Amino acid sequence: MATNSEPTVAVHTLELRRLGIDTYRENVVYLHRECELYRAEGFQALSKVKVCADNRRILAVLNVVDDESIVMPTQLGLSEEAFGKLGLAQGSLVSIEHAERPQSMGAVRRKIAGERLSQQDFRDIIGDITDKRYSKTEISAFLVATGQSDMDRDEVYYLTRAMVESGEQLSWNEPLVVDKHCIGGIPGNRTSMLVVPIVAAHGMLIPKTSSRAITSPAGTADTMEVLANVELDIGKLHDIVRKHRACLAWGGTAELSPADDIMITVERPLGIDSLGQMVSSILSKKLSAGSTHLLIDIPVGPSAKIRHMRQAQRLRKLFEFVGDQFGIQLEVIITDGRQPIGFGIGPVLEARDVMQVLQNLPEAPNDLRQKALRLAGRVLEFDPDVRGGRGYTIARDILDSGRALEMMNRIIGAQGEQQVKFEAGKLTYDLLSPADGVVVNIDNLRLSQIASFAGAPRDKGAGVDLFKKLGSRVEQGEPLYRVHAEFSSDFDFALRLCQDDSGYAIGDQSQIPAAFVEF
Amino acid sequence: MATNSEPTVAVHTLELRRLGIDTYRENVVYLHRECELYRAEGFQALSKVKVCADNRRILAVLNVVDDESIVMPTQLGLSEEAFGKLGLAQGSLVSIEHAERPQSMGAVRRKIAGERLSQQDFRDIIGDITDKRYSKTEISAFLVATGQSDMDRDEVYYLTRAMVESGEQLSWNEPLVVDKHCIGGIPGNRTSMLVVPIVAAHGMLIPKTSSRAITSPAGTADTMEVLANVELDIGKLHDIVRKHRACLAWGGTAELSPADDIMITVERPLGIDSLGQMVSSILSKKLSAGSTHLLIDIPVGPSAKIRHMRQAQRLRKLFEFVGDQFGIQLEVIITDGRQPIGFGIGPVLEARDVMQVLQNLPEAPNDLRQKALRLAGRVLEFDPDVRGGRGYTIARDILDSGRALEMMNRIIGAQGEQQVKFEAGKLTYDLLSPADGVVVNIDNLRLSQIASFAGAPRDKGAGVDLFKKLGSRVEQGEPLYRVHAEFSSDFDFALRLCQDDSGYAIGDQSQIPAAFVEF
Repeated sequence: MATNSEPTVAVHTLELRRLGIDTYRENVVYLHRECELYRAEGFQALSKVKVCADNRRILAVLNVVDDESIVMPTQLGLSEEAFGKLGLAQGSLVSIEHAERPQSMGAVRRKIAGERLSQQDFRDIIGDITDKRYSKTEISAFLVATGQSDMDRDEVYYLTRAMVESGEQLSWNEPLVVDKHCIGGIPGNRTSMLVVPIVAAHGMLIPKTSSRAITSPAGTADTMEVLANVELDIGKLHDIVRKHRACLAWGGTAELSPADDIMITVERPLGIDSLGQMVSSILSKKLSAGSTHLLIDIPVGPSAKIRHMRQAQRLRKLFEFVGDQFGIQLEVIITDGRQPIGFGIGPVLEARDVMQVLQNLPEAPNDLRQKALRLAGRVLEFDPDVRGGRGYTIARDILDSGRALEMMNRIIGAQGEQQVKFEAGKLTYDLLSPADGVVVNIDNLRLSQIASFAGAPRDKGAGVDLFKKLGSRVEQGEPLYRVHAEFSSDFDFALRLCQDDSGYAIGDQSQIPAAFVEF
Repeated sequence: MATNSEPTVAVHTLELRRLGIDTYRENVVYLHRECELYRAEGFQALSKVKVCADNRRILAVLNVVDDESIVMPTQLGLSEEAFGKLGLAQGSLVSIEHAERPQSMGAVRRKIAGERLSQQDFRDIIGDITDKRYSKTEISAFLVATGQSDMDRDEVYYLTRAMVESGEQLSWNEPLVVDKHCIGGIPGNRTSMLVVPIVAAHGMLIPKTSSRAITSPAGTADTMEVLANVELDIGKLHDIVRKHRACLAWGGTAELSPADDIMITVERPLGIDSLGQMVSSILSKKLSAGSTHLLIDIPVGPSAKIRHMRQAQRLRKLFEFVGDQFGIQLEVIITDGRQPIGFGIGPVLEARDVMQVLQNLPEAPNDLRQKALRLAGRVLEFDPDVRGGRGYTIARDILDSGRALEMMNRIIGAQGEQQVKFEAGKLTYDLLSPADGVVVNIDNLRLSQIASFAGAPRDKGAGVDLFKKLGSRVEQGEPLYRVHAEFSSDFDFALRLCQDDSGYAIGDQSQIPAAFVEF
């Protein structure tokens, strides 16, 4: 005796409208409060809604609009991201549905409760993250649940494997494909731009793809872009590597470990970076890029990501364990992370340092040269024909003879020389020493932050140029470093920051912290 | 020899513009990409920016706009939330700064790493959350870090205390201020609207403030609103309680444990609700409301929040431990949570059930009546003059004699009778039994979701009306429940949901799960 109301036959469609709002890696849709088809407020408390049209579906956060000039009650507004993802023309008809909570959040909740997750759990989670079914708060929950103390080494392996499988994988069909990677955190540390030409000049295959900075003042891709085009499509990248044995390109054009790119945007602003996540993030990228031999650089210092030798050793073992599961030849090197490497921080200033080293100029920063030679030496020793311990000398010969510079110029030429002539920012400020003495500390985090506030890497010429390094003797009033900016509000932000705390400490020679260096 | 650029004297101010975009509890500001004062893209990767004007400051997420009709390059657009928080007129001059990461995130990171936090750590975190310095991802990180296995009972106490101290505290200047609270998760469970009038009719002080639903189909405040005004300012609330010994009001007008309101908006959509957070959330609200005696209802069942007796006992001990630290008299009662209570789910249908019980009508749902009497009986026994075991009989006398109904009518009159006559939604659908047999399971979560999709509690008349409960004998084709909706898209959503899985299982008497009931 059911007296059911007629099920509504009409589909509830709205007209798609593209809004010029850039919501940065989060899909947002805008629905008018007076929409007669959907109750805008009903969807609002939900973390996500599903937008459907034809066979396309995207998940998005819903904002309610009270202004018809933004969206009409018959329209659904999409942010640039959402519009791009849905890929339909303006005016297309779309409908909205309740988005289900991603299935794999069940596994995240089990992890929060202290359970160990299986390979399948990690596959499900990474699959949902890759398909953008997780909101930022859900990603945050996953990152914290799998933080430091809560993931054993098998789980780190499962996670890494799930991340590799979630994206494209490059294949070079050679037995020896080398790479190097630093875990990050040290400003100015542009050794890749030296190691790659040295190693390639020796004839090894080193297809280096790098990231752009997310919260740091420059990534290798940002700095390389001062010299050459770094946005290469996969075909072009393959051609260059085949011909020149190397490239220095941005990795974003290949869809390598896409879940990593998504998780990093939540992880970095949160400032959480557990050992397990570091290992799975780095190895998933490198394995996807087809590396067979990999050198990992772990800098240790009071303001580095890793602050104690004990922790560095734990991280090393974890890299080795997971690397072995995949059958990649992996070496870890622990380096001096007490201060920035080289003089410049920010794309233009770092590129200058790199070119000075390649050109063997007397003013070239020696710490950058030495570190690059040591790393390159270790990479060269992956070559079965190089005798253990001889790598450094070979690397030095390649650099001193100008062959590394020549190779770099070939790479630049192949990728396309940068047509814009970037220069150091014209707004400058010299930070003066407050006292006579010796530089006893340089805070990596503070210097990074000053360079970021000054506009790096967005403005290529923005950043910080260091005049003094650890152990330098200084007089009161002598400049310690120069801030460069291109834009007046950024200049003010950076100024306020370094006037508040310069990041330098002046004291007595004996106060310089000891380096925990391996080589 | 510093050659510093002139520090820019001009302050970089933009003109404030209010945008009709409701971003639901998150401040969002909109900056044009071509703004000449600030580099919009530079701020975008940050989790938050600081908006400053005079002595006012708010933190907000930044979206970049490409459309001058939304914001001009000389303007800063604010979402409704952000505009309300900043509290300035349109056209006011504002500037933007980089927001520092909240200081207390250091403690959250220590918690992630497995450390135990101090009272001061929790004070700092709750202070920053209350002042809206945490982004949603940071709140998520805190919730997960302090989840289930990671907070010992002292920490739960510290967190509760920090939450109480973060807001207002009501004081009634009486030795006996009683309250009851259910941990939630059972649809239709509107016992408060019966316990309050019964207990108040006995003369006890019971100033009941309740929440509105966040993800459930109705909170007590939503249902009470069908009968009376529930939005009372603090003065009015005090007057009513003084005069009538009771109220049934929405708690949102008093700033009681405001951090809880913020955390819940992240917690609920995530679906994480650890024991420690449950205890601190509930107790911080009740302690802030000035309760001296509190009865906690923990329903246990296969689709309840608590699914095993073992876990219910753990939760009970945790409530007792924390309650004792504060010197509140706290009793815990474990109840049958196998199915919804009463027949109606959704404000109008639940209010109907409550009034039927108060009016002693023959069709009144007996399970709701019995549960309310038992809870009221336990609350009455907080009265030193009531002999242990006599509470139930006293409660029954009060209810049967009509004194509870009389008290309810006085409360409704005092708060202001609802002028709108709400009715059950006109769009209806009867879900029919697929087979002959006995109802052996009713899924609380599924029924809640169907009622929510149908529009509850937003549309007062939306929801689900149950015809059959556990153990009911049914024939194939007989209606199990009726869905009510007011809005056609909501009706369709609910329909699809219950056709996909009705939430009912029909089987054999022996399959009914055993109840774990205490009384």
